[in-house]
Amino acid sequence: MKCTRCRAQAEINLRSHHSAFCRPCFILFFQRQVERTIKKEQMFTPEERILVAVSGGKDSLALWDVLIAQGYQTAGLYLDQGIGEYSVHSREKVERFAALHNTLLQIVSLAEEAVSVPTAAQFTNRVPCAACGTMKRHFFDQYAIAGGFSVLATGHNLDDEAARLMGNVLHWQTEYLAREKPVLQPTHPRFVRKVRPLYRLSEMETAVYAFFRGIDYVIEECPNSGGATQLFYKEMLNKIEAQMPGTKSSFVQEFLRSAQPLFVAPDGTPPRECEVCGMPSFASVCSFCRLVQEVERKREKQKSSHHKSESQQV
Amino acid sequence: MKCTRCRAQAEINLRSHHSAFCRPCFILFFQRQVERTIKKEQMFTPEERILVAVSGGKDSLALWDVLIAQGYQTAGLYLDQGIGEYSVHSREKVERFAALHNTLLQIVSLAEEAVSVPTAAQFTNRVPCAACGTMKRHFFDQYAIAGGFSVLATGHNLDDEAARLMGNVLHWQTEYLAREKPVLQPTHPRFVRKVRPLYRLSEMETAVYAFFRGIDYVIEECPNSGGATQLFYKEMLNKIEAQMPGTKSSFVQEFLRSAQPLFVAPDGTPPRECEVCGMPSFASVCSFCRLVQEVERKREKQKSSHHKSESQQV
Repeated sequence: MKCTRCRAQAEINLRSHHSAFCRPCFILFFQRQVERTIKKEQMFTPEERILVAVSGGKDSLALWDVLIAQGYQTAGLYLDQGIGEYSVHSREKVERFAALHNTLLQIVSLAEEAVSVPTAAQFTNRVPCAACGTMKRHFFDQYAIAGGFSVLATGHNLDDEAARLMGNVLHWQTEYLAREKPVLQPTHPRFVRKVRPLYRLSEMETAVYAFFRGIDYVIEECPNSGGATQLFYKEMLNKIEAQMPGTKSSFVQEFLRSAQPLFVAPDGTPPRECEVCGMPSFASVCSFCRLVQEVERKREKQKSSHHKSESQQV
Repeated sequence: MKCTRCRAQAEINLRSHHSAFCRPCFILFFQRQVERTIKKEQMFTPEERILVAVSGGKDSLALWDVLIAQGYQTAGLYLDQGIGEYSVHSREKVERFAALHNTLLQIVSLAEEAVSVPTAAQFTNRVPCAACGTMKRHFFDQYAIAGGFSVLATGHNLDDEAARLMGNVLHWQTEYLAREKPVLQPTHPRFVRKVRPLYRLSEMETAVYAFFRGIDYVIEECPNSGGATQLFYKEMLNKIEAQMPGTKSSFVQEFLRSAQPLFVAPDGTPPRECEVCGMPSFASVCSFCRLVQEVERKREKQKSSHHKSESQQV
């Protein structure tokens, strides 16, 4: 097969794009697709400073790589979740990538700044992914504001978007559907714009990009892999895609074009500020601070009952 | 396992309802579910005359059976599509059922009144299911009006609804989503109300009902089985249901409750009347009459070229 662009030997065949590419042309194609999405959706301009949330996986590092290559002003933000070996490995990959590109990287250790994901899950009876999500959102916003960034970019790809859309549609989560957009404008001065520049590129395409660019990323999945349901939806969507190529993309695109505007977020009161941390919140104390407080309370209780049983033993 | 209702030995376990039933209690359960749907959705009253579209399959005969058992005033309408053995067998099943219940049955032969499905498909390059759908809609409306019925009932079950919804959602067919309701009010005096009293009961449940009631139905699928895509969606939904029981039902129910009202059918002009048959139509000639005219035109052409070649041979 020949490269659609330069007629050299193709290395990758993109059925849903009716194209095949050699290595350099695929890299160009991928970067241009991202650039087009950024422009079309007015995600950000070269004048803005962009905080890229990086996990060490292929998607977020591929995104960061493209943004650096296109000359955007970026910094990485890595949240060390304290999930054993997985966090150790993913942190190493992110640090190596940042060093290689000589670019800014902010590392936040959840264990130091708040509480690690496993501890939070253990003390609050939450599933790890729920605790992780709450803390991620909090620190993403906090560090974006603190660092003077106007935009937070995440590496969600088409498969992530389609799986999330499928889950929200199967249960008709209309409030979530109302916020399911590649660009979310801030609803409070301490929130920043949130963007997903890879939302039109498939998981396979980001994986190929990362491979062609020689990006060294963490391959293992998070061991909590709360994504069990997400993975299941992805599998379903891959079966549909195999039967009807292009469906995954049109499912997401057509949703954004013709259905998404129908789902209007309930107006309600704008967020106020959390009494503890000062970040935007709908309750007097934000969900992040409530989580941390709950862990502290239960830790204290455990300690004191531990003390009691020790003194009883004496 | 014991029957949830009467504690006798259960014959059927309904996971998504968290119930098990013996034969008589399942029949009662099924009939009550249908009755509840009819009342809740205000489909029709015992004072109205209901035309039941019957194909000879399990769903439509189960529906007719329930409506007769509940004492509604019904008549069956069977469209003989002229699809070889399949039509012969299904017609026999319908005739037998009507005779057994001593109830009214109207048989319409497409070949006699218009053109058989295979002929229509052959002469117009349409897929058989497209031609069949156009003709079905025409005759359902025409016979309902002619016979003084105010309602047309079809046997679509939950699996049909869920598969149709999935197809419309994957491609975000907003106009179709706007009309995806279990009760469609007529938009013209020559249209009747269209209702789907089985839309909350699964395919498995209707099959079990038909079996428990000893209904003799045609098991073979229509050989055109244009439902290839529908069948694929049903398979996907069955996989999702197996993983997350109850999803199929909540997908349809929650759509109707919270999303369907957001999809508004474009107002546009109300239908006028077809210049040929007088039935409601958006064009000067309705799609049914256009189909029939096309077949006639092409038949004539074929005949005359056949004549020519014959006279040339002489």
